[in-house]
Amino acid sequence: MSDYAALREEALAANREIPRRNLAIYTWGNVSAYDPAAGVFAIKPSGVAYDDLTADSMVVLDLEGALVWGTLRPSSDTATHRALYRAFAASGIRGITHTHSPHAVAWAQARLDVPLFGTTHADHGAEDIPCTALLSEEAVTKDYEAETGSLIVETFRSRGTNPAHMPMVLVAGHGPFAWGTSAAQSVYHAAVLEEVCKMAALTLALNPAAPPLPGYLVHKHWERKHGPQAYYGQT
Amino acid sequence: MSDYAALREEALAANREIPRRNLAIYTWGNVSAYDPAAGVFAIKPSGVAYDDLTADSMVVLDLEGALVWGTLRPSSDTATHRALYRAFAASGIRGITHTHSPHAVAWAQARLDVPLFGTTHADHGAEDIPCTALLSEEAVTKDYEAETGSLIVETFRSRGTNPAHMPMVLVAGHGPFAWGTSAAQSVYHAAVLEEVCKMAALTLALNPAAPPLPGYLVHKHWERKHGPQAYYGQT
Amino acid sequence: MSDYAALREEALAANREIPRRNLAIYTWGNVSAYDPAAGVFAIKPSGVAYDDLTADSMVVLDLEGALVWGTLRPSSDTATHRALYRAFAASGIRGITHTHSPHAVAWAQARLDVPLFGTTHADHGAEDIPCTALLSEEAVTKDYEAETGSLIVETFRSRGTNPAHMPMVLVAGHGPFAWGTSAAQSVYHAAVLEEVCKMAALTLALNPAAPPLPGYLVHKHWERKHGPQAYYGQT
Amino acid sequence: MSDYAALREEALAANREIPRRNLAIYTWGNVSAYDPAAGVFAIKPSGVAYDDLTADSMVVLDLEGALVWGTLRPSSDTATHRALYRAFAASGIRGITHTHSPHAVAWAQARLDVPLFGTTHADHGAEDIPCTALLSEEAVTKDYEAETGSLIVETFRSRGTNPAHMPMVLVAGHGPFAWGTSAAQSVYHAAVLEEVCKMAALTLALNPAAPPLPGYLVHKHWERKHGPQAYYGQT
Repeated sequence: MSDYAALREEALAANREIPRRNLAIYTWGNVSAYDPAAGVFAIKPSGVAYDDLTADSMVVLDLEGALVWGTLRPSSDTATHRALYRAFAASGIRGITHTHSPHAVAWAQARLDVPLFGTTHADHGAEDIPCTALLSEEAVTKDYEAETGSLIVETFRSRGTNPAHMPMVLVAGHGPFAWGTSAAQSVYHAAVLEEVCKMAALTLALNPAAPPLPGYLVHKHWERKHGPQAYYGQT
Repeated sequence: MSDYAALREEALAANREIPRRNLAIYTWGNVSAYDPAAGVFAIKPSGVAYDDLTADSMVVLDLEGALVWGTLRPSSDTATHRALYRAFAASGIRGITHTHSPHAVAWAQARLDVPLFGTTHADHGAEDIPCTALLSEEAVTKDYEAETGSLIVETFRSRGTNPAHMPMVLVAGHGPFAWGTSAAQSVYHAAVLEEVCKMAALTLALNPAAPPLPGYLVHKHWERKHGPQAYYGQT
Repeated sequence: MSDYAALREEALAANREIPRRNLAIYTWGNVSAYDPAAGVFAIKPSGVAYDDLTADSMVVLDLEGALVWGTLRPSSDTATHRALYRAFAASGIRGITHTHSPHAVAWAQARLDVPLFGTTHADHGAEDIPCTALLSEEAVTKDYEAETGSLIVETFRSRGTNPAHMPMVLVAGHGPFAWGTSAAQSVYHAAVLEEVCKMAALTLALNPAAPPLPGYLVHKHWERKHGPQAYYGQT
Repeated sequence: MSDYAALREEALAANREIPRRNLAIYTWGNVSAYDPAAGVFAIKPSGVAYDDLTADSMVVLDLEGALVWGTLRPSSDTATHRALYRAFAASGIRGITHTHSPHAVAWAQARLDVPLFGTTHADHGAEDIPCTALLSEEAVTKDYEAETGSLIVETFRSRGTNPAHMPMVLVAGHGPFAWGTSAAQSVYHAAVLEEVCKMAALTLALNPAAPPLPGYLVHKHWERKHGPQAYYGQT
């Protein structure tokens, strides 16, 4: 029987990136890493400081929420991660990051999609970054964290947005979730989201009528990084 | 007779967190630690740089303001700490932090309560963060620092706010005070206050009509961290 | 035959300044160094982290775009650098820096020239910092990166702006390019641009009607650093 | 004959504080230290990076501007320092700092006095921080840097402001100068100015009608740090 050592190490390394990239103070963020073959994910324990994390403090659960490995209580946001893996794993999602980075939280609290103003944004997603509706009282009462996941999934479904192409979201009144093809990439996307949110806020302060980037430029930037003829990076 | 070594060490460690968390430049902040059994608190000496602090430079006073241990002059804000312990110790307050962190000062100077826009705020207090009225000329003349404490206490009393549930306040035209069940937790709450103030300012810049978080979400976030069925953290 | 070791070392050192000066997160920036005698430039490889760069990972190309030395794929912005050297090398340009620093991106996304509000700006350029028009769909389709260079060159030509006197530009909807008489100076100008963009945004937030610096002060600051009787620095 | 070693060491230590306190990037700031007995001041050499400074690279001049010690060219702002010592040394000024810190520059570019909104400001000066008028074309042509000093002196004289009580100023369209009873204190006041400028900008963004702090609170804070019965600090 596996102890999921590699998966726990991947989750550990990604969680340690959160303070290094200034994405959360204290314990205000968590990352998980998913292994589709085993059908389990490793996640940060709840309320433990990043400096105190070890691979042994990670918690491993399956997609039904059953504890598979570990002794600590998992992140209070675990059910949100689980709901996202259930819906998005088929799109290749292998890692999820949740933070309270300030510019992303501000857009979530303002309850606004982040407009696509420039190529920094287009390099990582070819549309506005969605902000969900507010979670209903019924959903909060029923199962808060799982329903937060369902709200994200439903937001993407109703907009026809592909989670493999738009790896981030703002939950209204709460904050950001980001994902990727690995735990490390999900942290990267959380950092992108914070930077793009900051740039968009600065843009609107300078020009409240700033126009969106035209589609042909959005398409070009997306394609040069992600299209079949992509030529960014080393392979 | 005790030399209050443990209490002074607790106050020292908490004061050193102020520059580490970027809550004040130079000497613009002070933390105290209270021992309810002994009825005394240890506080930073006035005008001493954080790098130069030692446990021996801490000053210990009782709740009448009498010097109990130490050779240096205590923080010029000592009487404010004392007034808060006298009123709030029964609510379990064991540490107090005062800083001039810039976003908290800005809200205090704008003389505005900080609206409850999101879950980051709700995790730490279930209502707007209060900003006091301006201290009267009479109070300033009488006993400035003690009256600042009384103003805070009166603000909480008149609003029916429980200091154990709302561990921070803005003093109009001045700046933030925060408290907690230990000196360390009071610094944590001072850092939360700065971050929440920053997030709220960014939110209003994006959407001047940003709506408050509805009560059912405030309640949920407060309860999951502080209620009888709390499930955040490891105990 | 040369292996361009000195040129690659110059490019390496300049690329390493990008994270040190907080001009880009992850791999969001690139610097090149040009050798006019050899007619070649060394540039950062695409998508490689700054910490992982070595002189051997740099890529050397000539002004026709032919690979002269190296095994990695050059920056995806290489054709923009090439177009700028072809047009501006005669003005003494020997280094080019591209970043996504947030305040410069914000002005580019707002599609606004940066007004000359003060001496910090005038020390480095005696006119507004130009923001190009948006690149046309035709140009994007034809040859995106080369056309971005042509757009910059055409912006300077049509405005009668001397690239030796205005070492920075904003590409609308994209971000900043800066250049200089060495790779190191081009990074310096990228840092100046970010700081001047930040200062101008803060100025407009305080006073939307802030007046430009009068010509006699612009001229004085420019001349004391760059004129024939310059007296700033050690020679 | 003295080599002014102590004065040069004092100037060196104070200049090194500029990058440590994030008051300037690259070489955009300079500090001088004045010895009233000798009638000379030591100042940073022009255009030298802070990391490369040594006590031997400092330049010593008298109040007529004659070089007294050193081999490098002094700061291009030397004549401004000299004019300020000539006028303000009788008020006990022993050190001067000039920077291009961004929030102070923004207020200078917005050409606005900084309103006294709170106690952080009142602790260091009991009135608005003055912003000069724009230097005239005649003054720029005559002797730019010396006239900048005269403009500051004239601003204080015409307003009846005591430079010992208001240790900072904004030069319109340019940036901040600060001073103190030592070179170290002048850097401290430059840092205070940047922080107070930031706080005031954040305050106005939250509440464009933010009221000034009433006189009785200004007076109290000023007196508790600087009055005859001052009780802040250790003596």
